[in-house]
Amino acid sequence: MTQPQATKTLKRKLAKWISDEYRDLNGSHIEILDQPPTALEFSRLIHISRPVIIKGFEIPASQKWSNDYLAQEMGDRQISIAVTPTGRADAVTRGPDNKLFFIEPHVEQMTMGDLLAKLADQDSSSDIYYLQSQNGNLYSSDWFSQGYSPSEYEPLREDVPSEVPWCSEALDRSPDAVNLWIGDGRSATSIHNDPYENIYTVLKGEKRFTLLPPSDGWCLNEQLYPHARFVRPPLSKPFEIVPSQDMPPVRWTSIPDPSLPGALPADITPIQVRLRPGEALYLPAGWWHYVQQAKETTIAINWWYDMEMRGIHWAILNFMRNKEGLYVDDYEEQIEASVLTH
Amino acid sequence: MTQPQATKTLKRKLAKWISDEYRDLNGSHIEILDQPPTALEFSRLIHISRPVIIKGFEIPASQKWSNDYLAQEMGDRQISIAVTPTGRADAVTRGPDNKLFFIEPHVEQMTMGDLLAKLADQDSSSDIYYLQSQNGNLYSSDWFSQGYSPSEYEPLREDVPSEVPWCSEALDRSPDAVNLWIGDGRSATSIHNDPYENIYTVLKGEKRFTLLPPSDGWCLNEQLYPHARFVRPPLSKPFEIVPSQDMPPVRWTSIPDPSLPGALPADITPIQVRLRPGEALYLPAGWWHYVQQAKETTIAINWWYDMEMRGIHWAILNFMRNKEGLYVDDYEEQIEASVLTH
Repeated sequence: MTQPQATKTLKRKLAKWISDEYRDLNGSHIEILDQPPTALEFSRLIHISRPVIIKGFEIPASQKWSNDYLAQEMGDRQISIAVTPTGRADAVTRGPDNKLFFIEPHVEQMTMGDLLAKLADQDSSSDIYYLQSQNGNLYSSDWFSQGYSPSEYEPLREDVPSEVPWCSEALDRSPDAVNLWIGDGRSATSIHNDPYENIYTVLKGEKRFTLLPPSDGWCLNEQLYPHARFVRPPLSKPFEIVPSQDMPPVRWTSIPDPSLPGALPADITPIQVRLRPGEALYLPAGWWHYVQQAKETTIAINWWYDMEMRGIHWAILNFMRNKEGLYVDDYEEQIEASVLTH
Repeated sequence: MTQPQATKTLKRKLAKWISDEYRDLNGSHIEILDQPPTALEFSRLIHISRPVIIKGFEIPASQKWSNDYLAQEMGDRQISIAVTPTGRADAVTRGPDNKLFFIEPHVEQMTMGDLLAKLADQDSSSDIYYLQSQNGNLYSSDWFSQGYSPSEYEPLREDVPSEVPWCSEALDRSPDAVNLWIGDGRSATSIHNDPYENIYTVLKGEKRFTLLPPSDGWCLNEQLYPHARFVRPPLSKPFEIVPSQDMPPVRWTSIPDPSLPGALPADITPIQVRLRPGEALYLPAGWWHYVQQAKETTIAINWWYDMEMRGIHWAILNFMRNKEGLYVDDYEEQIEASVLTH
C-alpha cells in the first residue's frame, strides 16, 4: 500500500467508525410527537439532536391560506422568485467547458398570483419557479433585534407568528430568520446542512426530506465549486450558465440526489420523511437534508434558530465534513459519473 | 517519513484539530450560577456540556453534619473504607517485577467514628483511609427502580435527598447512584471520566478538580493495565501489591497528576475548580477529572445520572479516547518517565 493510499484508508476508517457507532446507537428511527412539546421536552430533544415529527402544529395560516387568499392579500406586490431551467437552484450543475459549477438561480419579480398560476400549470415544459429566497423573507434577524425588518410578504405576517414559543424558550433566543417557501415537484433543494436548529412546517402539499446525520458528512464529498448564475438572455432564448467574476468558490456536496439507490455507500441509509399539512419537522442543526416536494403546489414555512455554539457540537459538525482531510477519495469517480448522468 | 510515522502524525493531527477547535470556541471559562438553575436552564447547560459551579446548593446535611453528629448517628455500624499506603486507590502504580498495574485498594471495615479519628490524625505517616466506595453507597439504582436498596449509611439518608430535583426533571430520569465521600488531602482520585452527568457537592473541606473536556482524551494515553490489589499481610507488615488472577486488564489513563506542569502537551490547559461547602459542580458526562482534597477532612456527596445515550455524544466520547488508534504515541516515553518518578 502506498503512503497516500494508507492515509486515505485511515481517514476513511476513522470517519466511518464515528458514522457506524452513531448508526448502531440510534438506528434509523425518528420520534413522532402527537402534539407540540413543552420547552423542557424540546430542550431534551435538542440535546439528542435527532429529527422529530411534531403533529398538531397549527398557526393561523394553517386554516386561512388558500391560493385565492394569498393572491388577494398580496395583490400587486412584486416578490422575488427563483427561476431555473432545471429546478435545481443552489446546486452543482455542469456549465461552460463541461465544468461543474455551484449555480445560483435567476431571480424574477412577479406577483403572488403569477407565481401560483405558473405552479398550477403542470403541463408547462418551460422554466421552473420556486419561492425559496430564504433570506428571512417573512422575518429576518433585524425584526428580532430592532423590531422591524422589511418583507415582501408583509401582508401575510399576521398569519405567521414570528417565533415558535416552545423552541424560543428551549433555546432562550429568538429566531434568526423565518422563511416562506412555495414550489412544486419540479424543484428540489440539493443536499446541504445549516448551522441552525430548524422548525419546518407544511401548510399545503407535501415536503419529502432525505436526511443524513452530521456523522455521515464524510460521504457527501464536499468540494469547492466555482460560482455561476443562470442568466436569462433577451428574446427568450434558453438560460445560459454564466461563471461569476465576483464570487469566491462555494464548498458544496457532490451527490446530486442521495435518495437514489447507489448514491451513497451501501451501509449509509438516509432517513426519509414525508411532511404533510399540520405537521412540523424538527431538523437539528448540522443534519444533511435533500428536499423534494409533492407534484402539486407545496407551501411551507420554516423558523431558523442559531445553534448553540458553546460545547463541542460545532467542532464535530466540521470534523465530519469534507474538511481537514476527512473526505473519502474512493467515491470520487462514482460521484463524477453520477453528476454527469444527472 | 515511514508509514507508521505518517499514520501517527495524521492521527495526532485529526485528534488535535478537534481539541483545538473546541478550545478556540470555549476557552477555559466556566460559568458560575448564583443559585441552582431551573430544570429548563439546566437542560440547556447539559446540551452545552461544560462544567458549571452552582452556588447556594443546600441539603439538610449542609447544616446538620458535624463529626460528632456523623459518629453518633452511625454508631457501631461497620462501613467499608478504602485503605492504601499511597492515597492512590484505583490508579496506575508500579508493582511486582517493576510492572505497572491498575490497583484497587484494600477495603477495611470500621465505624464512622474510627474513620473520622484516622482522618483527624494528620501526623500519622501510616495507611491512608478514604470513604470512596462509589457503589451508590447512599442510594443505588435499586432504590430508584425497586424502592429499596441497602446502604451502610442508612441513618444518614434522611439528610440527603435521593434526587436533585432540577437535574432529574431536566434529564427526565432518576439518578443511577448517590455516593458519600469522606477523605483528606492524602488521598486523590486519578484522572478518569464517567458516562454520567454528575452533580457533586461539598459539605465540609474542599475538593480540587483538575478538568479536561472529552476532546482532550487523546492526550491522556489510556492503556490496558493488568489488575492488582493492595493486600495487607498479617502482622502489620507493609502493604503488598498482588496481581489479580480473576480480573481482566483495565483501560486507564497514564497521567498520574495532570495538574503538574509538563504532564500534558503545552497547549492543553486543564480547568482548575475549587469546590467549597454550599457549592455544587455540574460535571458533564465524559469530562476528565482528577480530584484532590483539602488537607483537612473533606465530606462530599455526588449524584450520578445516566447520560443521554441517543445522539452522537457517546460515539464522540469514545472517539476521543485512546481507542481506534487515536492516541498519540509521541507522548509514550514522556508518560513512562512521569509514572516512574511518581
